[in-house]
Amino acid sequence: MSVSIFDSFLTTSDMIAAFDDAAVVQAMFRFEASLARAQAAEGLVPQEAASAIAGVCKAELYDIPALILAGRRAGSLAIPLVKELTRTVALYDEAAARHVHRGSTSQDVIDSALVLVTRDALRLLDDGLHALCGRLLRLAEGHLSTPVLARTLMQPAQVTSFGFKAAGWLAPLVRARARIREAAARALQLQLGGAVGTLSAMGERGTLVAERMAQDLGLKLADSAWHTQRDEWVRLGMEVAVLAGSLGKLATDLSLMAQGEVAELAEPSGGGRGGSSAMPHKRNPVSSMIALAAARRTPQHAAALLACMNQEHERGLGNWQAELAEWPNLFLSAHGALHALDEAFAGLQVDGGRMRSNIESLHGLVFAEAASSYLAGAIGRPAAHALLEDLSRQANGERGLEDLLRAAVRADPALSAQVDLDGLARVFDPVAAAEPARRLAERQLQSLRADMAAFEATHPFHEQITA
Amino acid sequence: MSVSIFDSFLTTSDMIAAFDDAAVVQAMFRFEASLARAQAAEGLVPQEAASAIAGVCKAELYDIPALILAGRRAGSLAIPLVKELTRTVALYDEAAARHVHRGSTSQDVIDSALVLVTRDALRLLDDGLHALCGRLLRLAEGHLSTPVLARTLMQPAQVTSFGFKAAGWLAPLVRARARIREAAARALQLQLGGAVGTLSAMGERGTLVAERMAQDLGLKLADSAWHTQRDEWVRLGMEVAVLAGSLGKLATDLSLMAQGEVAELAEPSGGGRGGSSAMPHKRNPVSSMIALAAARRTPQHAAALLACMNQEHERGLGNWQAELAEWPNLFLSAHGALHALDEAFAGLQVDGGRMRSNIESLHGLVFAEAASSYLAGAIGRPAAHALLEDLSRQANGERGLEDLLRAAVRADPALSAQVDLDGLARVFDPVAAAEPARRLAERQLQSLRADMAAFEATHPFHEQITA
Amino acid sequence: MSVSIFDSFLTTSDMIAAFDDAAVVQAMFRFEASLARAQAAEGLVPQEAASAIAGVCKAELYDIPALILAGRRAGSLAIPLVKELTRTVALYDEAAARHVHRGSTSQDVIDSALVLVTRDALRLLDDGLHALCGRLLRLAEGHLSTPVLARTLMQPAQVTSFGFKAAGWLAPLVRARARIREAAARALQLQLGGAVGTLSAMGERGTLVAERMAQDLGLKLADSAWHTQRDEWVRLGMEVAVLAGSLGKLATDLSLMAQGEVAELAEPSGGGRGGSSAMPHKRNPVSSMIALAAARRTPQHAAALLACMNQEHERGLGNWQAELAEWPNLFLSAHGALHALDEAFAGLQVDGGRMRSNIESLHGLVFAEAASSYLAGAIGRPAAHALLEDLSRQANGERGLEDLLRAAVRADPALSAQVDLDGLARVFDPVAAAEPARRLAERQLQSLRADMAAFEATHPFHEQITA
Amino acid sequence: MSVSIFDSFLTTSDMIAAFDDAAVVQAMFRFEASLARAQAAEGLVPQEAASAIAGVCKAELYDIPALILAGRRAGSLAIPLVKELTRTVALYDEAAARHVHRGSTSQDVIDSALVLVTRDALRLLDDGLHALCGRLLRLAEGHLSTPVLARTLMQPAQVTSFGFKAAGWLAPLVRARARIREAAARALQLQLGGAVGTLSAMGERGTLVAERMAQDLGLKLADSAWHTQRDEWVRLGMEVAVLAGSLGKLATDLSLMAQGEVAELAEPSGGGRGGSSAMPHKRNPVSSMIALAAARRTPQHAAALLACMNQEHERGLGNWQAELAEWPNLFLSAHGALHALDEAFAGLQVDGGRMRSNIESLHGLVFAEAASSYLAGAIGRPAAHALLEDLSRQANGERGLEDLLRAAVRADPALSAQVDLDGLARVFDPVAAAEPARRLAERQLQSLRADMAAFEATHPFHEQITA
Repeated sequence: MSVSIFDSFLTTSDMIAAFDDAAVVQAMFRFEASLARAQAAEGLVPQEAASAIAGVCKAELYDIPALILAGRRAGSLAIPLVKELTRTVALYDEAAARHVHRGSTSQDVIDSALVLVTRDALRLLDDGLHALCGRLLRLAEGHLSTPVLARTLMQPAQVTSFGFKAAGWLAPLVRARARIREAAARALQLQLGGAVGTLSAMGERGTLVAERMAQDLGLKLADSAWHTQRDEWVRLGMEVAVLAGSLGKLATDLSLMAQGEVAELAEPSGGGRGGSSAMPHKRNPVSSMIALAAARRTPQHAAALLACMNQEHERGLGNWQAELAEWPNLFLSAHGALHALDEAFAGLQVDGGRMRSNIESLHGLVFAEAASSYLAGAIGRPAAHALLEDLSRQANGERGLEDLLRAAVRADPALSAQVDLDGLARVFDPVAAAEPARRLAERQLQSLRADMAAFEATHPFHEQITA
Repeated sequence: MSVSIFDSFLTTSDMIAAFDDAAVVQAMFRFEASLARAQAAEGLVPQEAASAIAGVCKAELYDIPALILAGRRAGSLAIPLVKELTRTVALYDEAAARHVHRGSTSQDVIDSALVLVTRDALRLLDDGLHALCGRLLRLAEGHLSTPVLARTLMQPAQVTSFGFKAAGWLAPLVRARARIREAAARALQLQLGGAVGTLSAMGERGTLVAERMAQDLGLKLADSAWHTQRDEWVRLGMEVAVLAGSLGKLATDLSLMAQGEVAELAEPSGGGRGGSSAMPHKRNPVSSMIALAAARRTPQHAAALLACMNQEHERGLGNWQAELAEWPNLFLSAHGALHALDEAFAGLQVDGGRMRSNIESLHGLVFAEAASSYLAGAIGRPAAHALLEDLSRQANGERGLEDLLRAAVRADPALSAQVDLDGLARVFDPVAAAEPARRLAERQLQSLRADMAAFEATHPFHEQITA
Repeated sequence: MSVSIFDSFLTTSDMIAAFDDAAVVQAMFRFEASLARAQAAEGLVPQEAASAIAGVCKAELYDIPALILAGRRAGSLAIPLVKELTRTVALYDEAAARHVHRGSTSQDVIDSALVLVTRDALRLLDDGLHALCGRLLRLAEGHLSTPVLARTLMQPAQVTSFGFKAAGWLAPLVRARARIREAAARALQLQLGGAVGTLSAMGERGTLVAERMAQDLGLKLADSAWHTQRDEWVRLGMEVAVLAGSLGKLATDLSLMAQGEVAELAEPSGGGRGGSSAMPHKRNPVSSMIALAAARRTPQHAAALLACMNQEHERGLGNWQAELAEWPNLFLSAHGALHALDEAFAGLQVDGGRMRSNIESLHGLVFAEAASSYLAGAIGRPAAHALLEDLSRQANGERGLEDLLRAAVRADPALSAQVDLDGLARVFDPVAAAEPARRLAERQLQSLRADMAAFEATHPFHEQITA
Repeated sequence: MSVSIFDSFLTTSDMIAAFDDAAVVQAMFRFEASLARAQAAEGLVPQEAASAIAGVCKAELYDIPALILAGRRAGSLAIPLVKELTRTVALYDEAAARHVHRGSTSQDVIDSALVLVTRDALRLLDDGLHALCGRLLRLAEGHLSTPVLARTLMQPAQVTSFGFKAAGWLAPLVRARARIREAAARALQLQLGGAVGTLSAMGERGTLVAERMAQDLGLKLADSAWHTQRDEWVRLGMEVAVLAGSLGKLATDLSLMAQGEVAELAEPSGGGRGGSSAMPHKRNPVSSMIALAAARRTPQHAAALLACMNQEHERGLGNWQAELAEWPNLFLSAHGALHALDEAFAGLQVDGGRMRSNIESLHGLVFAEAASSYLAGAIGRPAAHALLEDLSRQANGERGLEDLLRAAVRADPALSAQVDLDGLARVFDPVAAAEPARRLAERQLQSLRADMAAFEATHPFHEQITA
């Protein structure tokens, strides 16, 4: 696969290679070789013919650009590929030539090839998730007690822990990895149906051929050809789209926390990363940029797959072809985002001091609710609430809520007698305020660590990589 | 939920009721009652206060339109609802009033309420799938050997069996039912996090309160509040979208087969169904219409959910609210489509004779490939292929391919000696041609029947229905 | 039109009323009355019959919910409406009844009715744009010289003027108002084609009837019925979508500038606006929320219209009906956003001091480029650049770039001799830095004022409001 | 631009070339050369420096893949391009090097380059529309009186003329051509704003430089930099999307009429076009396929542009970059569809006989309404209606409605006396039935011809082609 100039900034070379023209064509040849071998094993094709066919099922023997050009004319890449394969087989073994692609159809070879290259693409995503999740886990572990402002509706709300926030970024990625594996186990199916899905040209041996091929290619055996029933395939696409959504959420938070006025996080810089052609002092968050671009585009790519589902009868007109063309986009975007964020988190700068000072710049207001609860024990809820409400209105940059409250307690002998000022300090202590978040995060990380360990026990996309 | 005039034609009263204003508000009260009870059990709230609160958590006590109006002003339905609930509790038990909604936040009650009404919506989909799958199963069983044209790229291709085609419609619906159940088991989670997801206002008892509430409401206990991590929720939406896609595929085939020039299927008519205001002779396929409309709109509704995933920090601004508003659309469309197709298949007219005559009108061309294979055994593949190619060009409405081939065999003594004309008849016999399809369908139906039986063993959405 | 509970928070009562069931039904009756009158004028229908028909074309005479219910069954609202109208006419004048809806078709009356109510919806948008543009113009005029940070890729970049920024928000809204008017002038077309668009049942008088009706209803006369050629209609939808996009851009900036750490702008609060159910100190930007929600959803609503364009033959199956149902969404969202932002700007709090201090908190770095240019005149570009680069690295909260540079100049007699320190002050003066922006804004506002004045000369949607 | 293997089947080499990497890079150099020259003319840059810069603004001097690779790292193609340009200028004229890209920013050069290559893309669309519209006009003119079934909701409805239908396909394409030209006139704007849109680094000469550049490059001078106000640009995209929608409607009709059972139209075949890898007798409608694929994908591409509109502050993070990457898709799809349909209509096979026989196969039912009207003059509307309703139920393949009606008239002396049987023949004559359609089409074509002639008077995209 080649991609356009502006697309290329938003993905990775690895993912471009996974869907490269040569990779797709090689996967198509792999299908044809497997078909011939399976048919030979079932006695439908002579063994020598199968060997002759398999022997020239090598992409490097063919002029791929010419195949693509001819495919465009024919409306399908399979037609010139089968024709050239047949011609090439005939050069070596004329009799074998008539066994090429027997009982199969264009969609069998194209869909199966896309399944094979998609498996490689999934390995890249799985590896990328492994790396990023590891970084996020360590980040969360390292900041379990680091207080940071929680913000709701883009306004400061209360204090949370940065580790808790990072665990919140991690959890959906762990789920995404699990769900993509599950969806892949269902969607990476052999496509084999023949002209109209009935395997009619192979007689009663059709299903046995399919079994052998599925085994050979390491793919699931479908209950039936899925030429126009794309649900499992589309579900896999939806899982990748949901991953992109979770990465977009992460990048949204990251870019907001990296704003000059917030400055709690910064992406790494240097080495030509994130410069500006006009402003030398700038450090642009290019990882966030890529992940945000992916999140912006992916809903549409997902919608395109769904919009292509109503494929007519036994092979769709336009919608199947549109689906093929849209499919790689989901993977290109998701891997671009994964890789970019991995880079960002590899060199992420966390400014705990700034997190603290951003809390402090709010004059203690984010602790008003907690202070009210604290006083309620001593003077009753209504009195406590009224006092805090009054003092909150007075709090400002010169005199914060804690200061005002201490003064109020000291000034009122009744209050002084009942309120423990040391305890009050704890209410206004950001670290103490982050404690509930720390507690939850610890428990959540324990469960996430277990999930992550389980992934390592199996490597669903590693064994069988398209050679 | 009320819906617009043109929306109402495309869904069902049942699904409108599931997301009705009153249903949502009642579910919100159910959350508040459950919260109070759980907090009482954990000693955070006096038992009498919890009883007082739970006692007035009844939608019928409140002026729902007024709540909605006030919610619009506040930017959230929870704010006036909590205020009115507090006021109402205070009428009976002033002390209890301050325990209303303690330690919770708007998003807790709104998300949890939407989860509860969504469970009811899922029951409707599950029941609808049960009904439609049953009809499709019987249809497939009844037409295992009925020959019908298979069509690829909207052109006649070969012969298949109508039962095989119907099995192809059934299988993705059976998968959809299973996957929606799985996704629901993950997504129907209690939302409880308090102001910023840390449960801080409930001290160390927060998670215990959550456990009790999840138990009480029959919802899954989330690992962590999912205020801005919407992945499991969105996945459920995607499953409904995939279902709509599969229903759209079915409706596409149905509408194509119901065209006047094809006339193999017809939707039931009569009783005001599918008439025309201008043309009395027309019978419009209104079930297909509804399912096609659903399939056309759903990709966008799914995209909207994905586009809303990047919710900022601890509560999103605009994207959460947009997601809430888009959510019911998926269910309204899917249930409209399910119900419409159920009606269509309840009275579907299958014209097996027309299926046969549509095959015949192609002058035997769809059997050319099979005839060539048949002759190859006798005269070798190249000669057979050349003969058939030649005769195919001559075939027309007056003289079909079978006729021409028989004449050619008879005219050539060498051929006559080798070719069994009785066997040839079988090649051109539509029923025989449908045999491979029948065979595959039989096997597939066996497996589908097992899956369908398994559904009946559990009723995931039936036990706990809101209200 | 009724809308769902969460939809209702994101739009206005006025827009809901514009697409209300009663409004649509009344517009349908208006079409039928106009049709009868026009046919009478052309001698196709007796004058008394036309009067009898027009006399009962009043929505209040009919049971609208019953019509909708029957329409749902029939697959079209027109069928029961025409039937009930016919029945009602017959009560008064049996002979007239057979002239009801003569030569017309369901789609004529439904599309034309939607055109009529859309005209009312457009008036609301036009008025809303008038109001918001007025506010933005005054805001820009009032802050032409107010320095504010310009930010690129979500990082502080250089200084601009807030008036320039506001002019940037205003300009696309002025363009939107103009373009929507243009698109409406093309799209607000009478739909009249009869059964298949040929007006065949009216003989040669069909086009004359259409001319009279277009005149009567104040609609454009189409070149041909646009039953399945929806391009002009969809273009109008796209214009509303672009408007929502521009409002979303505005709301994005507003919400970013209203963040606690930026605090340059604040939405008005008070009176139940933007409170929090958990955190009393919060002031949520609910106007931004509504506009952002609109911007998030609208791309999908636009895509839905585009996806419905391929309507089959002379009337679409499913896609026309889906388009009807999606159509109001664009208007509901856009008016919700317009109205919300109008409220926000009516009470917007602009903190010029904070804008200044946000610039200052960057230690002069945003002036480095300008300072380098300034020095270049005296000491040459390379020396100037090297000096500034060096000092920029040293600048921090304790000692800013200007301070460092003054010290460097003073410390070096050669520099002191060449560099005018008074001029340097101007380089680091935010107001001076905002001057280029002010200059551009002034020019731009002049042109925008002229455009806005031109709108007032014509009121395209005001004259003919559906009664 | 390179595109993926499956994308390449759905577009044209010309459009791929228009957005090719080299084309974009050359357009960027063209911008830099123009900038230098304009600045020289305004005295901001020495004339010799401008000449030195312009002299090496030639894409062929640079290693484009290396630029792209470095751009990916930097997050912007402009950064390495400006750096390499500066380095190259310095090789010849060291003093000139510091005047490269002066006062401009990445987005200025990238957006302007995309505008320049988009102009070339628009020329391709305009030319393609010219060709296809010409074919459709001739088709319509040639079949003004050819009767064909009109179909509504995918059911046979009444008779229309094929020329009228073709005129219906033509009209939206003529409108699209006009609207795209209008939108282009507004959207093909120079982008020049400098770092934050204020042109600050060029002092008071900035706007004069912009005027000169706009003149030089043949682009519109924007009121203000449109870095983050993308409305005019997006509107142009929407126009292309609407075009794709109209082409999709055309292709939908074409593919439905080319179905084996309808067979009124056929795409040309031969020369490797539309074959099947499994079924030799097939002729696949590959032009429809491409146009349908375009129509399926384009709504999402349009939605992506809209979804990218809310670009933050003075330069967007992620959304601008996503918009750049999505932009070419609209043009690739639209030109693919245009070109494919042009091929289809160049060799379209129209089977007027089959159109006629498809009408006849409906046993006269499509004439029932007209027959009823005809009889009404003689025997009154109620009696006529009742008679036709009764006979319609009896009509079938053996005995059609006309035959039954004639017999009924003959059998009833009262009827025979009143009904003119010759006139009745005209009612059942398809050509006569197509007459109203012919009449309308004639008028419509007259107006379309005038519009088409007007296009030829101006060639908005021809004069100034990049390179």
